[in-house]
Amino acid sequence: MFNIIEYNEANFKLLEGDYEQLSQFLKGPNEEIVQWIDIDISHKICVESLGAYYKLHHLTVDDILNPGQLPKIEAFDDYFFLTLKMMHIVDEDEIVYENVSFVAGKGFVITFQEKPGDVFEDVRSRIINYKGYLRKKKADYLFIRLVEAIADNYGITLEHIRQHIEGIESNLLNGKRHKVKVSNEILYIKKDLNLIRGYIVPAREVLGKVKTETGHFLNKSTIAYLHDIQDHVGFQVSLFETLREMMKDLMDLYNAQTSNELNHIMKTLTIISALFIPLTFVAGWYGMNFEHMPEIDWPYSYPILIGLMIIMTLGMIIYMKTKKWF
Amino acid sequence: MFNIIEYNEANFKLLEGDYEQLSQFLKGPNEEIVQWIDIDISHKICVESLGAYYKLHHLTVDDILNPGQLPKIEAFDDYFFLTLKMMHIVDEDEIVYENVSFVAGKGFVITFQEKPGDVFEDVRSRIINYKGYLRKKKADYLFIRLVEAIADNYGITLEHIRQHIEGIESNLLNGKRHKVKVSNEILYIKKDLNLIRGYIVPAREVLGKVKTETGHFLNKSTIAYLHDIQDHVGFQVSLFETLREMMKDLMDLYNAQTSNELNHIMKTLTIISALFIPLTFVAGWYGMNFEHMPEIDWPYSYPILIGLMIIMTLGMIIYMKTKKWF
Amino acid sequence: MFNIIEYNEANFKLLEGDYEQLSQFLKGPNEEIVQWIDIDISHKICVESLGAYYKLHHLTVDDILNPGQLPKIEAFDDYFFLTLKMMHIVDEDEIVYENVSFVAGKGFVITFQEKPGDVFEDVRSRIINYKGYLRKKKADYLFIRLVEAIADNYGITLEHIRQHIEGIESNLLNGKRHKVKVSNEILYIKKDLNLIRGYIVPAREVLGKVKTETGHFLNKSTIAYLHDIQDHVGFQVSLFETLREMMKDLMDLYNAQTSNELNHIMKTLTIISALFIPLTFVAGWYGMNFEHMPEIDWPYSYPILIGLMIIMTLGMIIYMKTKKWF
Amino acid sequence: MFNIIEYNEANFKLLEGDYEQLSQFLKGPNEEIVQWIDIDISHKICVESLGAYYKLHHLTVDDILNPGQLPKIEAFDDYFFLTLKMMHIVDEDEIVYENVSFVAGKGFVITFQEKPGDVFEDVRSRIINYKGYLRKKKADYLFIRLVEAIADNYGITLEHIRQHIEGIESNLLNGKRHKVKVSNEILYIKKDLNLIRGYIVPAREVLGKVKTETGHFLNKSTIAYLHDIQDHVGFQVSLFETLREMMKDLMDLYNAQTSNELNHIMKTLTIISALFIPLTFVAGWYGMNFEHMPEIDWPYSYPILIGLMIIMTLGMIIYMKTKKWF
Amino acid sequence: MFNIIEYNEANFKLLEGDYEQLSQFLKGPNEEIVQWIDIDISHKICVESLGAYYKLHHLTVDDILNPGQLPKIEAFDDYFFLTLKMMHIVDEDEIVYENVSFVAGKGFVITFQEKPGDVFEDVRSRIINYKGYLRKKKADYLFIRLVEAIADNYGITLEHIRQHIEGIESNLLNGKRHKVKVSNEILYIKKDLNLIRGYIVPAREVLGKVKTETGHFLNKSTIAYLHDIQDHVGFQVSLFETLREMMKDLMDLYNAQTSNELNHIMKTLTIISALFIPLTFVAGWYGMNFEHMPEIDWPYSYPILIGLMIIMTLGMIIYMKTKKWF
Repeated sequence: MFNIIEYNEANFKLLEGDYEQLSQFLKGPNEEIVQWIDIDISHKICVESLGAYYKLHHLTVDDILNPGQLPKIEAFDDYFFLTLKMMHIVDEDEIVYENVSFVAGKGFVITFQEKPGDVFEDVRSRIINYKGYLRKKKADYLFIRLVEAIADNYGITLEHIRQHIEGIESNLLNGKRHKVKVSNEILYIKKDLNLIRGYIVPAREVLGKVKTETGHFLNKSTIAYLHDIQDHVGFQVSLFETLREMMKDLMDLYNAQTSNELNHIMKTLTIISALFIPLTFVAGWYGMNFEHMPEIDWPYSYPILIGLMIIMTLGMIIYMKTKKWF
Repeated sequence: MFNIIEYNEANFKLLEGDYEQLSQFLKGPNEEIVQWIDIDISHKICVESLGAYYKLHHLTVDDILNPGQLPKIEAFDDYFFLTLKMMHIVDEDEIVYENVSFVAGKGFVITFQEKPGDVFEDVRSRIINYKGYLRKKKADYLFIRLVEAIADNYGITLEHIRQHIEGIESNLLNGKRHKVKVSNEILYIKKDLNLIRGYIVPAREVLGKVKTETGHFLNKSTIAYLHDIQDHVGFQVSLFETLREMMKDLMDLYNAQTSNELNHIMKTLTIISALFIPLTFVAGWYGMNFEHMPEIDWPYSYPILIGLMIIMTLGMIIYMKTKKWF
Repeated sequence: MFNIIEYNEANFKLLEGDYEQLSQFLKGPNEEIVQWIDIDISHKICVESLGAYYKLHHLTVDDILNPGQLPKIEAFDDYFFLTLKMMHIVDEDEIVYENVSFVAGKGFVITFQEKPGDVFEDVRSRIINYKGYLRKKKADYLFIRLVEAIADNYGITLEHIRQHIEGIESNLLNGKRHKVKVSNEILYIKKDLNLIRGYIVPAREVLGKVKTETGHFLNKSTIAYLHDIQDHVGFQVSLFETLREMMKDLMDLYNAQTSNELNHIMKTLTIISALFIPLTFVAGWYGMNFEHMPEIDWPYSYPILIGLMIIMTLGMIIYMKTKKWF
Repeated sequence: MFNIIEYNEANFKLLEGDYEQLSQFLKGPNEEIVQWIDIDISHKICVESLGAYYKLHHLTVDDILNPGQLPKIEAFDDYFFLTLKMMHIVDEDEIVYENVSFVAGKGFVITFQEKPGDVFEDVRSRIINYKGYLRKKKADYLFIRLVEAIADNYGITLEHIRQHIEGIESNLLNGKRHKVKVSNEILYIKKDLNLIRGYIVPAREVLGKVKTETGHFLNKSTIAYLHDIQDHVGFQVSLFETLREMMKDLMDLYNAQTSNELNHIMKTLTIISALFIPLTFVAGWYGMNFEHMPEIDWPYSYPILIGLMIIMTLGMIIYMKTKKWF
Repeated sequence: MFNIIEYNEANFKLLEGDYEQLSQFLKGPNEEIVQWIDIDISHKICVESLGAYYKLHHLTVDDILNPGQLPKIEAFDDYFFLTLKMMHIVDEDEIVYENVSFVAGKGFVITFQEKPGDVFEDVRSRIINYKGYLRKKKADYLFIRLVEAIADNYGITLEHIRQHIEGIESNLLNGKRHKVKVSNEILYIKKDLNLIRGYIVPAREVLGKVKTETGHFLNKSTIAYLHDIQDHVGFQVSLFETLREMMKDLMDLYNAQTSNELNHIMKTLTIISALFIPLTFVAGWYGMNFEHMPEIDWPYSYPILIGLMIIMTLGMIIYMKTKKWF
């Protein structure tokens, strides 16, 4: 099913239907009304028929159908093409990454998604419920609000990761560590950060080009919102750098704790050995079978030896304590 | 309570009151008098009424109410907006971070703070006590002095951290180390430096744009002070880099000491084991129950053995000493 | 044997033959027909005779004959010269690196290869089977499609390496590690990445210069394809950076696992020693030969001692368990 | 005491006196004669009176009195202000860091120092003894020669550190290491390099601006000398980078040696333990008190056992030798 | 002895002689003939008289006599000055570093060397034997060929180091390692790379300025050769980066092998201890002298104990084997 929202200040229509019916709803460039077409790219034929209707360059259609490349923006005569990565959190914990392509021009915005679920619900409800400026404005404002929704979710995702890192860190600092889990969690966070780096840094660059590439599409008043988005993404890139530093510190902390713990065990065990080895020697000594060992026959040898051994052991323990060995 | 200071060379007035009364004190752009309005952002309505009075763009109002983004400067027709991070030290030890937004124009400077307590006390007392040039100058000079107060506190904060690092370092070098505390202190300093990096480096960039963005607001004579502030922040960024290097060296030192200490313990314990193991073997040897062990029955075996063991032990100790094993 | 494909929209001819016959097939700049000459550089004389026929600068001929330098593009009066590294995967596993030089001008493209086997098979079959736009277009389009074939194989190669890294990673995470092999595989991947870095990053730069350096050679419609290739190579460079990060994480994982495993063994062995050393001492104790050891003669000493030792051992094991030592 | 040297080609005067007398010697801008005033900044009043006499901006006076900032150059109408860090070696070993501020204009150069002792002795004696071009030239040449003296001492200081590093390195390579000292020396060199980085890199930048900022002050022939100084400082920055690499290599070497040494000790001790543990077991074995141990009673058991033990020990030693364990 | 080669297409003269005679051979700027003067800088007087003859700026003469600075190029009215580092390999193994200064102008090239031996033999023999274009061309072509000779030797030197690194690497991988030698060789290669970094990177920059700085000296046809040299040096810089990566990988490999080897030894020794410690305990057990130890008197205790010990040892070995501990 596709999803078309048509609106102007006075009215709005929500059109849904089978992909076969799509073409009959298309209106093309239009001053009176804003048309937002949201389809997913799994229906190749559908994308291609849209491409034909809006006269998209066949490289644009290729880019829409084969996401996987970096964010980019490209201007054509009657439309421009923008592709960004969308990331959002589902089920409180899992980050979903998805490519979104925009094709926009006078009076229409088309969004091409890869998977069901997106970050545009708020925009949809604002159009339907007539909240905010959306219904009063043209397609350029819709476009900017959709991009803003994506950019805001970058921030939400990064904040989610930040809390995750801080959670692990505070667990470590409070001694609640379960080794396997921590090192695996660190690995998964690193994988997420590696992915996000490839999305968010180029997104900043691409957003920097939106103003010049889209020509007259953006009204002057909309450009202020664009700058706002750029500021947010700039902040997110800097937050991302902070997250990397935090990860480095977290791993240092984890490695330090792991090795401290091991060292503590090894030290304790070695201390035990060192305490008993001299005692064992002494015991071995009086186990010798020489005929002529005078101490053997003295009646008080045994209790004296017990005393000596206790003193020896205590001496070693006190020595280690003063040296702060344990 | 809000806080308005109104002054020119001849007079000054200190206006305080409930937020409801704020609007009646506002004067708007004014050649004769400088008005400095200092309010905190927790009273959203108050900020919004100020925004309405001074015709602030609603994105500016958003930025004021939702700090958390990076330092930035933005020029509008009748005013400009600057947001910076303020940091200062309270109770000799704790660093407080806070966002400060400036809105300034002809004859007025508005500062929006997040928390009680700031770094502007000195400026306030200079206006009130007629010290320095402040009373003779216009709003641009006030603005610059407020920014300078923020920038100077960057330096004070960094210097505070520097002394903290050097204190830990000298403790380590003098052997006064208490492990847990040092590694935690290092962690907290790293957290502070991570935060400050995100504030101070972009602050330098933003201050570099103040001159062009504020247009005619700054008088020529005030610009020299702006350059001075830029120099200071530039110096602080370089001091910050030095602090990071110092932290790295400090952590290297700490890690080296920790591992040296552990190695020393393990080495000592291993030496003890190695000394006693051959002796224990010899003792075990003469504990064997063979019928035909001639040494067992010789009368001088026992004292000879004692002698041999002492020689053996001394030999090993001397060998280790010459090899500088301990 | 050389290999010439001559085509226009209507016809195509595939010319092959001995290198001696090469000169008789050459047509030179030509509006009607596109000639693609593909030879390998091992026949020096042949390259030089081509150089003479097309009036190539002798530095160009040197560069063709002595590959090994970086990618570069150089424009001359009647032709331009481009040299790139080609990499492709043979036998599912081995990466073959090879230099390809292009000389192209009005109506002709010459490709100079080092080794048999290349990435141009798809282009060849499209010309022969009349698929795609190729037969309708001029030499500039052929040139771009050949470069695209090379660029696409960068992506395929990197993807291959990425899967290899992920394969190793998942083996490690699932505990299927065979030390020698993993560290060797890591070494070989590092070598490949080192090589590729030297090829792919400068390739991006060189492709950025193709448009300006080739002057009027590229038609306007072809330039869109060039931008597409540039986007792809840009994406591959960013993928390459991700691979390096992945390699770093992989090595961290491998090192962590190796040292964890070793630590586990050492810890277990040390625990065994620590358990038996006190027991051995006690056994040694009652091996002493003193005349006056009252416990020796008591009838229940032996079973009591057995009991004590079991309790002692269990106590130590329980202590270690509660401390999570193993 | 202040120190003024007044000279032209024919004459020179050396004026010294109490700070109270300073003002009566000042000549101000002057075509006929060059006046070099050298004072230290501890006499605040004196600096301020100079500031008043030469009409220095009060920010300049502030900068002179409160050194600690980065090198900078600033042009004013009648003079320019340059501040640099001076470093020189005293007592063959200690590096002294000091701020020097220059104020120069037509016919005069004023140098403000922090501490007694400087790097200008050679320039002073050249003026006094009429060596070199100094006496024939104007104030700009004097200024350049003073800056050159500072720049040359950067090189001397770095060379001194380089020799220090190489000295430590060759001590390490020749086995002459005394742990505590080496790690402390490394720490002190790191501190020096950290300081110098903050001085020398910005100095290069500032010197790059001298030509444009000083306007007509520098004669064309003097500019060649300025370029020469810039080259030197550029070389010193590159030398500085080399020193950092050397430090890294030195620390790697030191750490490697420290850990090799420890490993060698631990390995040796562990080998001793491993040699004796099986022997001790065998000895323990024949210390068992079983009634029915036939070997016990055989007359040749004892010498055979001795033989076996020697063979066992030799076997283990030979095995370890072939495996290159020691 | 100095060395002058004078040539044009028709003739050439090789002039050698004592330094006193030098001045009588000098011809100065000259259209008909090319004069290449090659002297070493140890004869200061000789350099100064050349400086006087060609009217060199005294800073140029200083730079010639005191090499040690970075590569640089400087244009003067009648000549330009270029200084580069030359490196070549002597006796198959040793890298010799030397400064070469060029002074060139219409009809003459002067090369100032520090040491006997250089990389110009091929150029010399080409002039003498009339090979290549050299004799037909002017001084600019000679200059370029000399610079090319230097640049080519950068490549040869780096290739030499690369083979050295690969040799060590393959030795390590084949298990042929002799610790002390490898770590020393790594140290020496690091020293060489540190030096070369300081020579080759700035050389690339300087060569980039040759075209603009030498003004009309270079003919248009010669500039193509200059670009070729720039390409080569650019490639060498990238090869240099690869060498650094290879060094890092080599050191990682070496460190990993060193620590693996040590770990293997320690593990083996610890396993031996762990195997014998329980056995020793059991032996000690039956060495106890209790009156009432029933096992002692049983006739089959001894063979049963032997059997138990064998089973125990085998059990532990099998357990370790299944756990892949050795």
